[in-house]
Amino acid sequence: MEKRARVLIDCEDGKGLVYKISKVFYDRDLNIDNNREFVDKEHARFFMRTVVTGLFDTEELLEALKAITPVDAHIRVIEPKDKKIILMVTKESHALGDILIRHADAALGAKIECVIGNHDTLETLVRRFDIPFFYIPANDMSREAHETRVMQCINEFEFDYIVLAKYMRILTSTFVKAYPQKIINIHHSFLPAFIGANPYKQAYERGVKIIGATAHYVTDDLDEGPIIAQDVIPVNHRLTWRDMQRAGRDGEKIVLSRALALVLNDRVFVNGNKTIIF
Amino acid sequence: MEKRARVLIDCEDGKGLVYKISKVFYDRDLNIDNNREFVDKEHARFFMRTVVTGLFDTEELLEALKAITPVDAHIRVIEPKDKKIILMVTKESHALGDILIRHADAALGAKIECVIGNHDTLETLVRRFDIPFFYIPANDMSREAHETRVMQCINEFEFDYIVLAKYMRILTSTFVKAYPQKIINIHHSFLPAFIGANPYKQAYERGVKIIGATAHYVTDDLDEGPIIAQDVIPVNHRLTWRDMQRAGRDGEKIVLSRALALVLNDRVFVNGNKTIIF
Amino acid sequence: MEKRARVLIDCEDGKGLVYKISKVFYDRDLNIDNNREFVDKEHARFFMRTVVTGLFDTEELLEALKAITPVDAHIRVIEPKDKKIILMVTKESHALGDILIRHADAALGAKIECVIGNHDTLETLVRRFDIPFFYIPANDMSREAHETRVMQCINEFEFDYIVLAKYMRILTSTFVKAYPQKIINIHHSFLPAFIGANPYKQAYERGVKIIGATAHYVTDDLDEGPIIAQDVIPVNHRLTWRDMQRAGRDGEKIVLSRALALVLNDRVFVNGNKTIIF
Amino acid sequence: MEKRARVLIDCEDGKGLVYKISKVFYDRDLNIDNNREFVDKEHARFFMRTVVTGLFDTEELLEALKAITPVDAHIRVIEPKDKKIILMVTKESHALGDILIRHADAALGAKIECVIGNHDTLETLVRRFDIPFFYIPANDMSREAHETRVMQCINEFEFDYIVLAKYMRILTSTFVKAYPQKIINIHHSFLPAFIGANPYKQAYERGVKIIGATAHYVTDDLDEGPIIAQDVIPVNHRLTWRDMQRAGRDGEKIVLSRALALVLNDRVFVNGNKTIIF
Repeated sequence: MEKRARVLIDCEDGKGLVYKISKVFYDRDLNIDNNREFVDKEHARFFMRTVVTGLFDTEELLEALKAITPVDAHIRVIEPKDKKIILMVTKESHALGDILIRHADAALGAKIECVIGNHDTLETLVRRFDIPFFYIPANDMSREAHETRVMQCINEFEFDYIVLAKYMRILTSTFVKAYPQKIINIHHSFLPAFIGANPYKQAYERGVKIIGATAHYVTDDLDEGPIIAQDVIPVNHRLTWRDMQRAGRDGEKIVLSRALALVLNDRVFVNGNKTIIF
Repeated sequence: MEKRARVLIDCEDGKGLVYKISKVFYDRDLNIDNNREFVDKEHARFFMRTVVTGLFDTEELLEALKAITPVDAHIRVIEPKDKKIILMVTKESHALGDILIRHADAALGAKIECVIGNHDTLETLVRRFDIPFFYIPANDMSREAHETRVMQCINEFEFDYIVLAKYMRILTSTFVKAYPQKIINIHHSFLPAFIGANPYKQAYERGVKIIGATAHYVTDDLDEGPIIAQDVIPVNHRLTWRDMQRAGRDGEKIVLSRALALVLNDRVFVNGNKTIIF
Repeated sequence: MEKRARVLIDCEDGKGLVYKISKVFYDRDLNIDNNREFVDKEHARFFMRTVVTGLFDTEELLEALKAITPVDAHIRVIEPKDKKIILMVTKESHALGDILIRHADAALGAKIECVIGNHDTLETLVRRFDIPFFYIPANDMSREAHETRVMQCINEFEFDYIVLAKYMRILTSTFVKAYPQKIINIHHSFLPAFIGANPYKQAYERGVKIIGATAHYVTDDLDEGPIIAQDVIPVNHRLTWRDMQRAGRDGEKIVLSRALALVLNDRVFVNGNKTIIF
Repeated sequence: MEKRARVLIDCEDGKGLVYKISKVFYDRDLNIDNNREFVDKEHARFFMRTVVTGLFDTEELLEALKAITPVDAHIRVIEPKDKKIILMVTKESHALGDILIRHADAALGAKIECVIGNHDTLETLVRRFDIPFFYIPANDMSREAHETRVMQCINEFEFDYIVLAKYMRILTSTFVKAYPQKIINIHHSFLPAFIGANPYKQAYERGVKIIGATAHYVTDDLDEGPIIAQDVIPVNHRLTWRDMQRAGRDGEKIVLSRALALVLNDRVFVNGNKTIIF
């Protein structure tokens, strides 16, 4: 039966890669629906994302691609199915709400397995959508003890990504390393400006004329992970920092949802501390 | 007791208006928290929006302002309280959902009295938020008969604005005239480009590089009412019109919510077929 | 000696095109520096732009590519060299000036052969840069007679493109057909809004909140040719149409220069009434 | 004879300021063409910019305004006339060129007194416009010695502003303090991101998806002065830092010219480390 798959290849660059890879597809009589490549010349690294349709055996296709690419090649043949995600939140509803509405409309491209909150503020909203909400407070507890409880909860589920939809606690190295390239965060500034706490207040005090939002993979370095998407909105002297915070929320939620759509569609390669977006 | 009010004045321009109006405030020892004026020189028309705080009697203040402004002056002294709105929808959830989430978070600045749909697609979503949903189908019915039923439903409520959150039917002149300057629509194009049906398909066929969304007051002329807010997003040759439609939804919902915030905060004056936004 | 070329292919879509084309490059031991493809599924048309480096004979490469592509294929192997352009202007200096400055800095990627004006307003500016200026007034002359004189002037030069840098006369069908896909215009609106005369006045009267500029190929239908680039800027009720015109000029010149860079780098395919931009 | 003036007032906030100031205008039978106010509540500071027309004596008007405003008031009554500016440049032509073209078209609103370069690269371009160019090299010279020579040159002229149109040397505290609120710089990043040297390389290495430009007053703290205007452009993984630099130039020149227009029209108040833009 005719199938469809996203083929993602990431390997050392070399002459003839496009030819050799497209030959694998051609020999199996596959259609190329969509094809994008990029060579990072600085690091001599080749990236390719191809959507193929036709009759193929996924394992056989994967083996054939491995045979003609460098040994370091990272190859994925992904048959489209809804991914699974876990959301982590604190008190603000805008980013969570935007994802819930898309989810309810089957427009998210992922199933929300559960929402974890370090406050119970958003429990009512989540339950309106018949999605499990786990309230795991951090009071009177070490950061490590709290994260252990969160990880116990997370590990009950199968999931592809953890989405921090305005989760306002800093994660430890242990947590981050447990889920490499699987945690996506929205930071409420135009990174790398205004790293850290209360970026809107920092922006207000600096007197900038534009504020922004940044969705990124979470790595061990706070607010330093590979950036997936950014956007900005103009501000002026009439806005207090609270006004900026309010105005910035639309940007935050849209950037997070945009990044999530890219990730869920397997359009993002992580390349060192950067991303390649196809 | 100290009060706060938005004073909106719209009258024929004349020398000394700022002086005379600010004297009224000064004589009553009111604080001016915020003040914006504009003179439309083409039509010799003066617009002013001032936020005052202090001890005042609303009726007395209104009379005092009337006494020193031209006879044609349209003056409002509005004490802040949540407005009431009615939503009209068809099948798409994004604009409605964005408003529902803000409403649930008390961030809308208005109470949603009810949602009216000509399809029942969105009933489940609305009911999740404990808001009345009225399904008024238009099948086997003249446009007039359908609107009569809708108006009967609307007229059961007190409300300030009717918000068409992707309501996909054209309203008759009778309907529009029944609620002057009270109906706000989101049109899924950068008006005046692509008036009428399926603007995304029109945009696709024209090969534009940017698509947009427009929030406007509804008047008797289809898609021709005063524009409140517009925004755009870049597109390219890789997007089908369905992709554009999907991509455009974020713009639509943000522009509608932005326009709604302006209107609900009494920041919009209608000036002929245009708006003045303070 | 190692050479570099841009290979542009535009043909009926079919299975294995990427494979067959990359095989031609592989067999000749060419490096692919950059490769982009697109399939217009609606019209089953394949587009590809590849930058290759290596030892090759341009004619032989072209023949090899023809041999493996459909008969309707339009194939170009372009060795980078500066293109030649002719500018046509009327009175406004901003779009012309932007191009002149880039030209003077060798940042244009083209040699300006001459500037033709239907007014002599800009002669002084052009002569400052030691570029020929031809003043061809249209007074007391039919449109056809004027264009005949312009065409005589143009045809004295070898050139790749005619750039209308705010040339404010409508061209006849005869003129346009004489230089197919060779005339690039900047229109001072966000097409298709405000086609025709004085788009800023139209925008002012409609009360839009955003204005724009559009660079496009000129075809026989006024303001209807394939769009290359567009951009927008926000406006508000405080701007008169003259203010909008002034504010719009920056957008116009930047959009025109951006479109010109794309065209001069052979990054634009015309596909019916649309463009594909790589 | 009827005159026109911009009245700029900046003082401690207090009740009745709008009333008292508009009374001064009213008592003199002046027309208010345009009026904008802002109160910085955090610092209890009032700002007002009014354009008045009528018959008035500038000194008398100034005295009358002083009489009714707090003692700390900074009041200016500015009769429109072209300002005078001095440009400082290094090697890049885009920002300089944009200003030269506006100047040649009488669209700058200022007279360029001279251009000073620490390299002679741009001398030819400047001389094309019949504007004096002073080449003051910094080779084999201390920073202080070089600046002394620059200041000798500057001080030969009357001027309102010094515009650093991509002047790539850091100015000493002595220089900056000699011209308070008179030096305007364009920084090639979205400040406060990427302060210091080679912001495009920093942006490339951080993998941001948007780059920007910032026009600001120069103060003693490098890249920390009050921001006048900012803008951004999207980038992606395909751009090298040199590509970003090229792409960023349009943003730089437009932001600088926009900031310059605001400053030359007396629309900018400096408020601590921020600006208020009317």
